[in-house]
Amino acid sequence: MKIAVDAMGGDLAPQAIVEGVIQAASELPSEARIVLIGRENIILDIFKQNNFTPVNIDIVHAEDVIEMGEHPTKALSQKPNSSIGIGFRLLKEKEVDIFCSAGNTGAMHVGALFSIKAIEGVLRPAIAGFVPQVGGGHSIMLDIGANADCKPEVLSQFGEIGSLFAQHTFQIDNPRVALMNIGEEEQKGSLTAQATYPLLKANKKINFIGNIEGKDLFNDKADVIVTDGFTGNILFKLGESLYDIMKKRGIQDDFIDQTNYESIGGSPIIGVNGNVMIAHGVSSPLAIRNMIGWAYKQVKSKAYQHIAQALN
Amino acid sequence: MKIAVDAMGGDLAPQAIVEGVIQAASELPSEARIVLIGRENIILDIFKQNNFTPVNIDIVHAEDVIEMGEHPTKALSQKPNSSIGIGFRLLKEKEVDIFCSAGNTGAMHVGALFSIKAIEGVLRPAIAGFVPQVGGGHSIMLDIGANADCKPEVLSQFGEIGSLFAQHTFQIDNPRVALMNIGEEEQKGSLTAQATYPLLKANKKINFIGNIEGKDLFNDKADVIVTDGFTGNILFKLGESLYDIMKKRGIQDDFIDQTNYESIGGSPIIGVNGNVMIAHGVSSPLAIRNMIGWAYKQVKSKAYQHIAQALN
Repeated sequence: MKIAVDAMGGDLAPQAIVEGVIQAASELPSEARIVLIGRENIILDIFKQNNFTPVNIDIVHAEDVIEMGEHPTKALSQKPNSSIGIGFRLLKEKEVDIFCSAGNTGAMHVGALFSIKAIEGVLRPAIAGFVPQVGGGHSIMLDIGANADCKPEVLSQFGEIGSLFAQHTFQIDNPRVALMNIGEEEQKGSLTAQATYPLLKANKKINFIGNIEGKDLFNDKADVIVTDGFTGNILFKLGESLYDIMKKRGIQDDFIDQTNYESIGGSPIIGVNGNVMIAHGVSSPLAIRNMIGWAYKQVKSKAYQHIAQALN
Repeated sequence: MKIAVDAMGGDLAPQAIVEGVIQAASELPSEARIVLIGRENIILDIFKQNNFTPVNIDIVHAEDVIEMGEHPTKALSQKPNSSIGIGFRLLKEKEVDIFCSAGNTGAMHVGALFSIKAIEGVLRPAIAGFVPQVGGGHSIMLDIGANADCKPEVLSQFGEIGSLFAQHTFQIDNPRVALMNIGEEEQKGSLTAQATYPLLKANKKINFIGNIEGKDLFNDKADVIVTDGFTGNILFKLGESLYDIMKKRGIQDDFIDQTNYESIGGSPIIGVNGNVMIAHGVSSPLAIRNMIGWAYKQVKSKAYQHIAQALN
C-alpha cells in the first residue's frame, strides 16, 4: 500500500507535514509506504533537522506549489508539476492508493473530479466529516463543503454513499442514516429538506431513521448525517471550535478532546474513483500523523470500490 | 407595563409556567405587572399549592388551548378563545406590552403576523436567538426558525433589523453585523449567501464586517449574525445541546452554563409591530422566570418602535 502525502500543502507546510509523516512512518504496518510529494531538498532538510533516516518513505519531487488562495481549476492546469497535480497523477495511474493534502481544498476537490473522476452514477462527490459522538466513536456527516447548494436527489444519494462508507470504514452493519433538519416531523424544513425526506424514505438500500436536529449532532442518534455542504461546513467548523474554546477555559474532557481537528486530521472525498483525504489547512504534525492512520484504514476498507460496485 | 404570559403553552404547562411567573413576580420592578392567560381555576390552584398570593399578577381566563401539534393557522381561527388567541388580541389592542408563550411556535409566529402584523417595509419577521459569547454577553442570530428559506433581500434586511434590535436591547453602539458562511471571502458560500454579501456590504445603515464561519459562533466576532431559519435553527439547537452534554459529563463552566436555554428562556420575534417572545417548548420555571426578565428589558428598550421609525 502506498499513501501519498502532499508535503507542500497547508499553512504550516512543509515543516509540520514532514514532521507528521516522520511520526506516522514508525507506526505504519509494514505493508504500507508513504510517498511524500514536494520539493526534495526541503524535505531532506527537514529529515536531517530531525535526525531522521527514512525507511518506508519515498520522495517524489514536485517543483511547484498551489497556494491556498489560488483559483483551483486555473492553478491545476497552470501547475501540472505542483505537488497536488502530481499527487492526482500518481493516484490516477494507481501508483499510489490514496492521496492526502492539507493544501487548497478547492484544488483537491477539482483535482479529484478531473483525474480519478466521480464514480459512475454519483451525482456529486462529497467531503465527509467525521463527527465525534458522546458515546465514543464517530458519525460521518456529508457534505461538509464541496457542494454548498444541493438538490434533493444529491442529498438522497449522500445517504446511500455515506451509508456504504460507514459500513466499510467503521464496520457498522446497517448504519442509521438521518437528515439534518429543523424538526423531527416529515413535513418540516426548507423546501429542499422537505423534498429530500421522501427520497431517503423510499430508498430501500439504506436504514433511514428520519430527521435529526442540531441538538442531536453529537448525541449518538445517527451514523450517517445527510446535509448540504453549506449547513454541514458551518456545523462541522462549530464542532471543531469547541476544543479551542474549552482548552482556553482550562477544561479537559475526553469528548471535547475528540472535537479537536487533530484527533482525526482528515476528511475523505466520497464518491470518486479512488481515495482522497483532505486535511485541515492549519494541520499540525499530530494532525498529519493521525490522518495517515485513517488513510491506512480507508484504503484497507476498500470503501470506494464497494460504492462503485453497489452503484453499478 | 404589562407582560402577558401564556399559562397553558409548553410541555410542562401550566405547572412550570405558573411557577416561573410566581418566581418572576417578586423580582419585577413596581412599574410592571404580569397578565397570566389561561384556565383561571387551574392557575388559582397552582397559586394555592405554592401558598402564593398574587400582588402584581392579573389573570385573564382563556377556555381553550392550542396544542403543540396543531396546525397554526387552523388552530388560531378555530380557537379564538385559546390562550394564544387571547394573548394576541390583548397585544393588538395594546392592553399588554408584550406577549410571551412556550406553546406552539408556529401559532405564535402566525398569530403575530395576523394580529399585530409585520412592520411596514419588513419583508419577513424573524425569530432571533440570543447566542452566548465566550467573552460574556450575547450576540443575536436571526433567523432561527421562522423562515427556513430566505431570499437575499430578506437576509440583508435581517442585518438591518437585527442591528437596530442589538443597539436598543443590548445598548451596543454600531453593532457588528456578520453573515454566517463557509469562508471569509466575499465570493464564498451558497448561491444565496453569495448574493446576500453585496447587499449587506452596500447597506450604509449597518456596520457589516463580512462573513463569519461556524467556528466563530461563540467567539465574540459579531453582535448580529445573519442566517436563514434553517441554518440558524440547527446552529442554535446545537448550541443549546452543549449544556446538557457537558452537565452529563460532570463539567461545570460559566460559558457552558450560558448555553443552557434556561439562562435566557425566550427568543423575540423581530420585525413585527409589537413585542412577542417565544419560549422553549420544555420551559422550566427558571426558564420562564428569566424570560420574563428579558421581556421587561425588551419592552423598556422600545426596540420595535425604533425599527418601525428607522424603516418608515
